[in-house]
Amino acid sequence: MVAVGTELLLGQIVDTNSSWIGEQLALAGLDSHFQTKVGDNADRIRGALELGLSRADAVICCGGLGPTQDDITREVIAGLMGVELVQDGAIADKIRTMFRSRGRDMPQNNLRQAHVPVGARPMDQQPGTAPGLVCPVGDTDGPFGGKVIYAVPGVPYEMKEMVLGTVLPDLQARSGTNAVIASRTLRTWGQSESALAEILAGRIDLLDEVGNPTLAFLASGVEGLKVRITAKAVDQAEVDEMLATEEEILRGILGDIVFGTDDETMESVVLGLLAERGLTLGVAESVTGGYVTGRLASVPGASEVLRGGITAYDTEIKFNVLGLDRGPVVTADAAMAMAEAARRVLGADVGLGITGVAGPDEQEDQPVGTVHLGFAIDGRVDSVSTKLPGDRERIRQFSSITLLDQLRRHLLDL
Amino acid sequence: MVAVGTELLLGQIVDTNSSWIGEQLALAGLDSHFQTKVGDNADRIRGALELGLSRADAVICCGGLGPTQDDITREVIAGLMGVELVQDGAIADKIRTMFRSRGRDMPQNNLRQAHVPVGARPMDQQPGTAPGLVCPVGDTDGPFGGKVIYAVPGVPYEMKEMVLGTVLPDLQARSGTNAVIASRTLRTWGQSESALAEILAGRIDLLDEVGNPTLAFLASGVEGLKVRITAKAVDQAEVDEMLATEEEILRGILGDIVFGTDDETMESVVLGLLAERGLTLGVAESVTGGYVTGRLASVPGASEVLRGGITAYDTEIKFNVLGLDRGPVVTADAAMAMAEAARRVLGADVGLGITGVAGPDEQEDQPVGTVHLGFAIDGRVDSVSTKLPGDRERIRQFSSITLLDQLRRHLLDL
Repeated sequence: MVAVGTELLLGQIVDTNSSWIGEQLALAGLDSHFQTKVGDNADRIRGALELGLSRADAVICCGGLGPTQDDITREVIAGLMGVELVQDGAIADKIRTMFRSRGRDMPQNNLRQAHVPVGARPMDQQPGTAPGLVCPVGDTDGPFGGKVIYAVPGVPYEMKEMVLGTVLPDLQARSGTNAVIASRTLRTWGQSESALAEILAGRIDLLDEVGNPTLAFLASGVEGLKVRITAKAVDQAEVDEMLATEEEILRGILGDIVFGTDDETMESVVLGLLAERGLTLGVAESVTGGYVTGRLASVPGASEVLRGGITAYDTEIKFNVLGLDRGPVVTADAAMAMAEAARRVLGADVGLGITGVAGPDEQEDQPVGTVHLGFAIDGRVDSVSTKLPGDRERIRQFSSITLLDQLRRHLLDL
Repeated sequence: MVAVGTELLLGQIVDTNSSWIGEQLALAGLDSHFQTKVGDNADRIRGALELGLSRADAVICCGGLGPTQDDITREVIAGLMGVELVQDGAIADKIRTMFRSRGRDMPQNNLRQAHVPVGARPMDQQPGTAPGLVCPVGDTDGPFGGKVIYAVPGVPYEMKEMVLGTVLPDLQARSGTNAVIASRTLRTWGQSESALAEILAGRIDLLDEVGNPTLAFLASGVEGLKVRITAKAVDQAEVDEMLATEEEILRGILGDIVFGTDDETMESVVLGLLAERGLTLGVAESVTGGYVTGRLASVPGASEVLRGGITAYDTEIKFNVLGLDRGPVVTADAAMAMAEAARRVLGADVGLGITGVAGPDEQEDQPVGTVHLGFAIDGRVDSVSTKLPGDRERIRQFSSITLLDQLRRHLLDL
């Protein structure tokens, strides 16, 4: 992996592209030993590409395919291939059309993006104006004989479409695996990585003997712990079959700490469960200061379920707006009263309440990290209390997910 | 820069350390041409270090200093230096003390962190158990004669303390600059990068002739546009003087689009302005779904100013809880009524209201991106309406900051 861009070296942009590509390569069972960032400098880009080709069978070069004079990846690769750049008429037309469809004039610069090294193949995917390029370097006798450079743009959604659509399949073809490789991620909440490893130890040993499918853990902080199943088979149907079977087995072992799969999030899952049951939701927050409602509202379509939220950050609001009895407000009773009030005031079927101490200071003599969660659902009101480690922001985030996870468990029990 | 860790290559962790170090080096006027990620493999780590030393005067090696068997950076560097690892008694004691002070037993493994290559110097800063190491490689006759490897842990806050406290000063000493280099960042909101460049063109030309101080732009999305002043002088006093003078000049040119400096955020600035004026704040949100209140609440000490927020995500709540007159709710009038209601219902001095269309669908025949902002402050109620580009999440974020920025301008006018 060679990521091109001076802004990457200066730290103006964090190179998340390499991380994403690295994960995709790992998922596809392809080894990636080095990832390098290099600035917009022809000699250093070429040096990084040649170094990469000297130690690997293929190099993915990300960035420097834009229309400006800084974008020199095309020129550098042509130089390395020892060929000319020629304008590709089809790509030039495509770029002109894109600008026209957006009702904008095309700066002449943009035609630079239609320049292709002789012998290179433009990728079929072209979501933006920059085409990706498959560049064979040198004939099979040359120093880099039979090796290849994949040039993709630095714009993440353009890069991802090309890597998934062209680079990975081409790499797998070259690596001789005509097998179909696919993966599924189980999203879990409520267990530590070591605990999860212990629970799954037996299953992992079993799978290690066969070697396919494989399991990988990924600790993702507030996103929970991910368990990734990767399977390899002769065709898609069989891969899907293997993934489905393994998912069923793992769900059997892990039980309800699995809250979703792949791109599902805790909030999308909870909103889905509420929608299935035709229930609306209201939230009363204190310690999380609107964070819970904000996360829920960020899910497209949330408005069908989410009635709204009240952030009673100041204690008086707990009394005046939510109608709590005067007294301590960092208690399980207060959390339950908030949940009931959220249901009543916001006219929702289900009410959530959350109160606690995020710090920096203690409150009502309760230590930082104390959190009380209240649930008003199906005519019952109950609470869960917990103590969370970490700083203010971590406490706010983890208590929010814990609240939603507990609601999820309540809904599954309905 | 060599970042060590297989989890970096697999994309399980994004390498933000290199980005941060790259920015610090740029600020210090030191060139960084390559940044490489390498896995926990002795040969490949050594290869990356030797390659780095062959093209640079110094290499910063980040990660692999932990207590586990995977953490082999110490061994690799000792091998490269051609020396033994010896246990440093002082560091061993320090580590034992740290565990004792945390009431935990020390696993014997942790003493590996007290191993230091002969000739290497532990850094004074040691916030965690892992010591940073200044490692001179080879005498001045050797291939890497006079060059140096700085080994720092991958834990961000430990790494940062060591880079700022030891690495940068040592690099500047070695590079012969005994000048003091410091920078200040002006945070701005409301102008595009190109517009800002145009406004400052004259000033930049002037500074380019002198070459000191220098200006740099940094587009940071929802964090706004940053203008960084970097000055060089013989001592701290003169640097501070230069920064202060340049800041004053730039504020004169940019006016009130500058909302803060350095680590200040829009929400911390707004909360500060309210606190200075002894005013409390209430927020009524629709389109942003609690995001505004959540951002404000994330600032430590927010509770002194922020009374709370009401997210009227469902239209009925705008009528029932906020008491808006029945009718269209994506209007400037609705935003003003929400602001007034936030003030009244939440018992605050200042009320904010925000309503709009984040999409995916239109609402009340108004296009996605339409946002109305309401302000109830100092006995007056007024509104600002705008149209924002981008997707759902971007609209939610940018409308939130725009709301806070407009409140800031209201407060400055008081």
